[in-house]
Amino acid sequence: MHEYKRTIHFADTDAAGVVFFPNFLAICHEAYEESLAAAGIELNTFFGAHAVLVPVAKSAAEFLRPLACGDRISVGLRARPTGVDGYAIDYEVRRLGPPDKLAARVRTEHVCISARSRERQALPAPLAAWLKANA
Amino acid sequence: MHEYKRTIHFADTDAAGVVFFPNFLAICHEAYEESLAAAGIELNTFFGAHAVLVPVAKSAAEFLRPLACGDRISVGLRARPTGVDGYAIDYEVRRLGPPDKLAARVRTEHVCISARSRERQALPAPLAAWLKANA
Amino acid sequence: MHEYKRTIHFADTDAAGVVFFPNFLAICHEAYEESLAAAGIELNTFFGAHAVLVPVAKSAAEFLRPLACGDRISVGLRARPTGVDGYAIDYEVRRLGPPDKLAARVRTEHVCISARSRERQALPAPLAAWLKANA
Amino acid sequence: MHEYKRTIHFADTDAAGVVFFPNFLAICHEAYEESLAAAGIELNTFFGAHAVLVPVAKSAAEFLRPLACGDRISVGLRARPTGVDGYAIDYEVRRLGPPDKLAARVRTEHVCISARSRERQALPAPLAAWLKANA
Repeated sequence: MHEYKRTIHFADTDAAGVVFFPNFLAICHEAYEESLAAAGIELNTFFGAHAVLVPVAKSAAEFLRPLACGDRISVGLRARPTGVDGYAIDYEVRRLGPPDKLAARVRTEHVCISARSRERQALPAPLAAWLKANA
Repeated sequence: MHEYKRTIHFADTDAAGVVFFPNFLAICHEAYEESLAAAGIELNTFFGAHAVLVPVAKSAAEFLRPLACGDRISVGLRARPTGVDGYAIDYEVRRLGPPDKLAARVRTEHVCISARSRERQALPAPLAAWLKANA
Repeated sequence: MHEYKRTIHFADTDAAGVVFFPNFLAICHEAYEESLAAAGIELNTFFGAHAVLVPVAKSAAEFLRPLACGDRISVGLRARPTGVDGYAIDYEVRRLGPPDKLAARVRTEHVCISARSRERQALPAPLAAWLKANA
Repeated sequence: MHEYKRTIHFADTDAAGVVFFPNFLAICHEAYEESLAAAGIELNTFFGAHAVLVPVAKSAAEFLRPLACGDRISVGLRARPTGVDGYAIDYEVRRLGPPDKLAARVRTEHVCISARSRERQALPAPLAAWLKANA
């Protein structure tokens, strides 16, 4: 399981004084990017080099506690295959305490497609390795 | 059913060249805000005046087609009660053609709570009226 | 002069209850995109087709009045050449009344470069025509 | 001088493949928030407790180099008083190398006002101390 920590910033919040709900998904995507980087997958070159895209096909989220500017959070993620050509990622967003409190549960489902034909294709080996390491 | 139209802007997109998936949810929230405004509910004063909040408790989305900068879209929404103290909204995001193409389906679930106690409470009358009008 | 109207949304605001200052610049960029589209310049294909980029090299802004969720605004823009290879755009963001109130003045300076070499180059003809029409 | 490090994320970028220019300002604001937090100023409670706001009245920026997803950056900031009731902050955004490269210079000017009357007022003592420490 990969864990990503950061602080809630003004840019994450809205006029209700707390994190705007779509930004929880953006924050989870940051955790995903960091976990790819930790596996040696460089976002800026990997997808071009392999001529694939792995777009998010579905997302689901439960928002359990509001997060405010300055809150320290931790995002844990676990990935699992949904076939040879995709994976699902489960995220838990915690507000760090003490005590830590679960603030949101998020899931994203990704499908690997050819950048050219947009047809489904098997995950490139480094992505399959990342998937195994983050199960 | 309320319908909201707008154009995809650079700020909506990411380095993959298309709308960043959390921004689909933000765009749907715009459609929701516009439908409240059309019912005479002023976002900037209504919630304070009624001492309630109606945060998003859950979201779900299916992303069917990428949207690019300059694309014209329409967001249709339908709301339905989930009890006396909440509602769900189903959105369909279409890329305007011809032919129009369904780009995403999004759902948000909202719970009405007291701004003071954060306990669940019945929807204020204008919100119940908006709900009926957008079923 | 091109004029662009829209409503302030939750996504534009921060925990201070008003538009987060970088979002004024993003809103002005929307007005710029709309004025290009009005001149027949399709954002999604134009820059690729002409193998140019016109990045923002400088920005400046004065924030005169806060804008809140639900506010109706108008963004007026005027462009002027800064050479054969660039232009500056002056924006005025007004909160629509009555009475209208000036909320911000923004300027962006753009430089036209080759997408390949990143060297400065003259504006493609359609962009030069847009510039003349929006002076 | 305070220094803030982070990685460029997908959410920071646009369809041109690099950081959307208003997001440079949002990233600099993160550095400012972190420097306040490092001085013991809690964003979520400080301004309410002191009944002041310190909005950005002006911003200026030079964008020197594009930043891409995955780039590691450092934001250095220096603040200086502009009177008893305000300050300016100069930021340098560097892409970490080797070699490090200057990517942007940003300035924000802040004015301290009463949250009630919106009239200018002297900086609260902790903010004056932060200012001295970050000169």
